[in-house]
Amino acid sequence: MNWQSEITAAHQRVAAHVVRTPVLDFNGFGLGHSIGLKLEQMQHTGSFKARGAFNTLLSLDVPKAGLVAASGGNHGAAVAYAAQKLGHKAKIFVPEMAGPAKIALIERCGADLQVVSGVYANALTAAQAYEQETGAMQVHAYDAPATVAGQGTVMAEWEDQGLDADTVLIAVGGGGLIAGAMAWLGRRRKIVAVEPALAPTLNEALAAGEPTQVEVSGVAANALGAGKIGQICFDLAQQTQVHSVVVPDDAITAAQIALWKETRQLVEPAGATALSALMCGAYTPAKGEKVAVLVCGGNLSDDPFG
Amino acid sequence: MNWQSEITAAHQRVAAHVVRTPVLDFNGFGLGHSIGLKLEQMQHTGSFKARGAFNTLLSLDVPKAGLVAASGGNHGAAVAYAAQKLGHKAKIFVPEMAGPAKIALIERCGADLQVVSGVYANALTAAQAYEQETGAMQVHAYDAPATVAGQGTVMAEWEDQGLDADTVLIAVGGGGLIAGAMAWLGRRRKIVAVEPALAPTLNEALAAGEPTQVEVSGVAANALGAGKIGQICFDLAQQTQVHSVVVPDDAITAAQIALWKETRQLVEPAGATALSALMCGAYTPAKGEKVAVLVCGGNLSDDPFG
Repeated sequence: MNWQSEITAAHQRVAAHVVRTPVLDFNGFGLGHSIGLKLEQMQHTGSFKARGAFNTLLSLDVPKAGLVAASGGNHGAAVAYAAQKLGHKAKIFVPEMAGPAKIALIERCGADLQVVSGVYANALTAAQAYEQETGAMQVHAYDAPATVAGQGTVMAEWEDQGLDADTVLIAVGGGGLIAGAMAWLGRRRKIVAVEPALAPTLNEALAAGEPTQVEVSGVAANALGAGKIGQICFDLAQQTQVHSVVVPDDAITAAQIALWKETRQLVEPAGATALSALMCGAYTPAKGEKVAVLVCGGNLSDDPFG
Repeated sequence: MNWQSEITAAHQRVAAHVVRTPVLDFNGFGLGHSIGLKLEQMQHTGSFKARGAFNTLLSLDVPKAGLVAASGGNHGAAVAYAAQKLGHKAKIFVPEMAGPAKIALIERCGADLQVVSGVYANALTAAQAYEQETGAMQVHAYDAPATVAGQGTVMAEWEDQGLDADTVLIAVGGGGLIAGAMAWLGRRRKIVAVEPALAPTLNEALAAGEPTQVEVSGVAANALGAGKIGQICFDLAQQTQVHSVVVPDDAITAAQIALWKETRQLVEPAGATALSALMCGAYTPAKGEKVAVLVCGGNLSDDPFG
């Protein structure tokens, strides 16, 4: 796979459909130095997932039976939104833990939604069964080339906006977003993969030498609780020697509060997870090392205008 | 007053102390066309007011008795923050209508806070009495050259970021922010002054031919309820022939909800007021007219992490 050309093509393909999300430098969070931020939670449907969804729908032939996706919530909303905009049917499976705000968001996008019990993996099983039955096209949340190439456009766009960083911190669930970043950057910049200690999907896979099933729970579980890292992400993580760290839930919540208090950005726990690694010391930059943080999602379970 | 040089000097003076707030283009809000947004609610203490406060404190001699300010909340927080950062004492008077979140914010910035009954004008009277008694320096919320020059840095910065708009919409309370914009832009771009119908301070002054006292109420009153437009603003509004419109409270609330639903920006009513003029049709751009909206404040009375 020539990721550079795939992501370049994806970037051109999705440009008219996604938000070119803003970036800024911010000196705060008790860090004592400035960091770069990209506010990707301002993307359509509140997370980067719209990029992968649009790239998939625009690059592959969608059958008459339409689309099917399994999701902790954000990917489902993105597929539903892209399907609505492009005139396709969408069937979305989410686990109960997606929460009422994400469920309402998917419904507003006009998708046929089914809530299943348990965690993300259960929704994926249901979606695979639906795919078999109906011939609908499965839009995988993270482990498909078109999804990864779409998510990679975040990093291509950020570089186009003048990203000035030695190191970029990115939260990891199933690994679609960071896979896109690794695919685009290779080893040109250091990438730090940040996961909740209660959902260490990539961290445990790297230790085991292969993707393994992990238990997931905690404040960010509906967004970062894939349970098993995607193979595409895992392979890229090994190739690029990504730096993997984990953070406790209370650090994630502290970063979430700091983002609101200091920058008036109200994000979901997953959206604050990458920042939390700097604030709690899970990752400490060297002297002079310039760091940037990708803020990836803003769909709170307790929607202020629910 | 040579506003160009005042604002240029202010911009250099405050640059190290304020956030260079992000900008983006966004196609949404049911408008059918893209608009420019500047997210100035990401400024320190959640509104543009930090610019005027820093410019004042850095350009004038602060007496030993320190600073005093009257405020609906946002200006008080900004003065308290700037005073704390620069090592001065600050006494802040706010009306009860400032609300618990803004009051808590001012207290967190270490100021000596006094809550007075009634509206902003009562806080201003109390602050003037304190100034007389103590010799503290009054930092006026909107009707002082250093304040206006500081607020003008928003527009200088936005142009530096490549602002591509024929027309800029700006919410008006006492008029400090829009005065800064008018002072910087002159008639190079069209400026639309947007006020709540329940606090039409500039709109009524322009009709009367002079600043007049108006009754203020409604959802944005603690930020836009100055009651009487500043003389500096009024004079500039006449000179530049600003376009003045008013919007109903329900339009402000609709814009506030749309900013959250579509861009995950959670702002106070004043921060959504300028956008509301486009959404409700109080201002309709001509075909091909490029418009931009300044999002000016994010301090909700119902703070999500209050």
